[in-house]
Amino acid sequence: MADIPTPGFTGSPLVRIDIERDNRAYFDQQLGSLSARLLRLDGLTPQVTDDGRLSWGSLAEADPEADLALLGLLDGKPRFVSLARVDEDPAQRNAAMNTALTMLEREEAATYAAARCLVDWHSRHAYCARCGQPSRVFRSGWARQCARETGGCGTEHFPRTDPVVIMLAEYEGRVLVGRQHRWPKGRYSALAGFIEVGESIEEAVARELHEEAGVVVSDVRYVASQPWPFPSQLMIACIARAESSEISLDANELEHALWATRDDIRAALEASDDAPFLAPPPYAIAHTLLSTWLSEG
Amino acid sequence: MADIPTPGFTGSPLVRIDIERDNRAYFDQQLGSLSARLLRLDGLTPQVTDDGRLSWGSLAEADPEADLALLGLLDGKPRFVSLARVDEDPAQRNAAMNTALTMLEREEAATYAAARCLVDWHSRHAYCARCGQPSRVFRSGWARQCARETGGCGTEHFPRTDPVVIMLAEYEGRVLVGRQHRWPKGRYSALAGFIEVGESIEEAVARELHEEAGVVVSDVRYVASQPWPFPSQLMIACIARAESSEISLDANELEHALWATRDDIRAALEASDDAPFLAPPPYAIAHTLLSTWLSEG
Repeated sequence: MADIPTPGFTGSPLVRIDIERDNRAYFDQQLGSLSARLLRLDGLTPQVTDDGRLSWGSLAEADPEADLALLGLLDGKPRFVSLARVDEDPAQRNAAMNTALTMLEREEAATYAAARCLVDWHSRHAYCARCGQPSRVFRSGWARQCARETGGCGTEHFPRTDPVVIMLAEYEGRVLVGRQHRWPKGRYSALAGFIEVGESIEEAVARELHEEAGVVVSDVRYVASQPWPFPSQLMIACIARAESSEISLDANELEHALWATRDDIRAALEASDDAPFLAPPPYAIAHTLLSTWLSEG
Repeated sequence: MADIPTPGFTGSPLVRIDIERDNRAYFDQQLGSLSARLLRLDGLTPQVTDDGRLSWGSLAEADPEADLALLGLLDGKPRFVSLARVDEDPAQRNAAMNTALTMLEREEAATYAAARCLVDWHSRHAYCARCGQPSRVFRSGWARQCARETGGCGTEHFPRTDPVVIMLAEYEGRVLVGRQHRWPKGRYSALAGFIEVGESIEEAVARELHEEAGVVVSDVRYVASQPWPFPSQLMIACIARAESSEISLDANELEHALWATRDDIRAALEASDDAPFLAPPPYAIAHTLLSTWLSEG
């Protein structure tokens, strides 16, 4: 296989220091450090500097009522994010968000992804799913615990990451791309779907391609992965061999699908005038997947 | 790379029919089918026949108060499982469970994994994590929805699958295996850990090996995956290249770790008298990972 371009949202230089998350004294020590910095967010959207970096302020900028999460160390400095509740649909990306993603350096986007996932997860998980009682921030902001003092059951809850397969079916030098109804006009991309309980990656790839496009595949091979913070997926990119080029669309999932040649993919990735469709943005792993397949030809 | 042995808990012939899960009429039709079958469980433990198959009864055996989930079709017959609440620690495997896992055919274990994950997830998620109000079974048993009638917010919740990396660091013809304090005497296996928010598979492999064993790696390559229903992980098996053989253990995570040769691994997988350690069971992907690495030598 050819060299794989580095996927978006990876390469954060953040040192997570998981080992100290249970250590309250360590947390307090970092909180009291003169070098401690707070990530600047507008809701879930990052503030981005002109040179594509995240913006960091002092801890004094944080809502004093809100908990803080210790993200880890960057350049030796403790980095925090406020867990003040944000009431946004985390699956949506508005214009400001899309602009920020286009501007942010890849490594900066990766640090942002971790912070954003935490803020969103806490915002939507203030109660214990087991008993319904309030839970509180725990483990330096990387978990919640159902509060026994208020009658809760004490269950610990951890941020959720949903594994998703995103894949190209390949048939005689062409790959299957499709579009969803709600996507920007002209955009096509790799098909994708959540991995279900009781499934392997390979089984989910085969099931999704069959369900959404009626395409039967074998020889699933892994290509690359990335975190996708809208709200918190692990994208697992694969290529599989299709048994035929027949398509039978699930109209609820897809508006259209087509088999694209390497020339089509090249034109789309280069955003040529004669491109048959609009490619996914560079920070999406579908872009990595299409580039990888193109380079194999 | 050599051919990879098929991982445990994969290969279920279950047809999931996701597309009909929102269709209440379809659910009722399957429920009324004379061929409908109910999976027999004792709590979370499967009943296993002498020839290593799951045991199925009639729907009349189900607790009439409990919801049912439609798993899908097997041999053309609708297959259900009761979602009656089970109060067991889903991460623990007692003697009966271990016996069942040893007896079950791989494909049967895969069907069981999906059912078990659903039953356990519903048992531990009766309330909405967003607002704390009761939720109810939804989408043919494959989701829950916070109940508006009782003052809830209507949020939909889906079964959770936690991606986990499990990996071998390789250095000069040897691989790193370790043991946790609570494991059976003599058992060693691949190191493993949860993928966190904002991380790729490759980054999680590198972070976990560094945190738990002080080993720095590069060139992470994907090998295979499996669902692991204790309670609901997606195990992602990888091999990475270590930069040195120096080990610095995190004593909270690991009791001991060692670099094993191919002869060591062969003896362990064959359970020879002179094996230096006890290998993980065949249904664990660590077994697949060790076999794969052995076959590459």
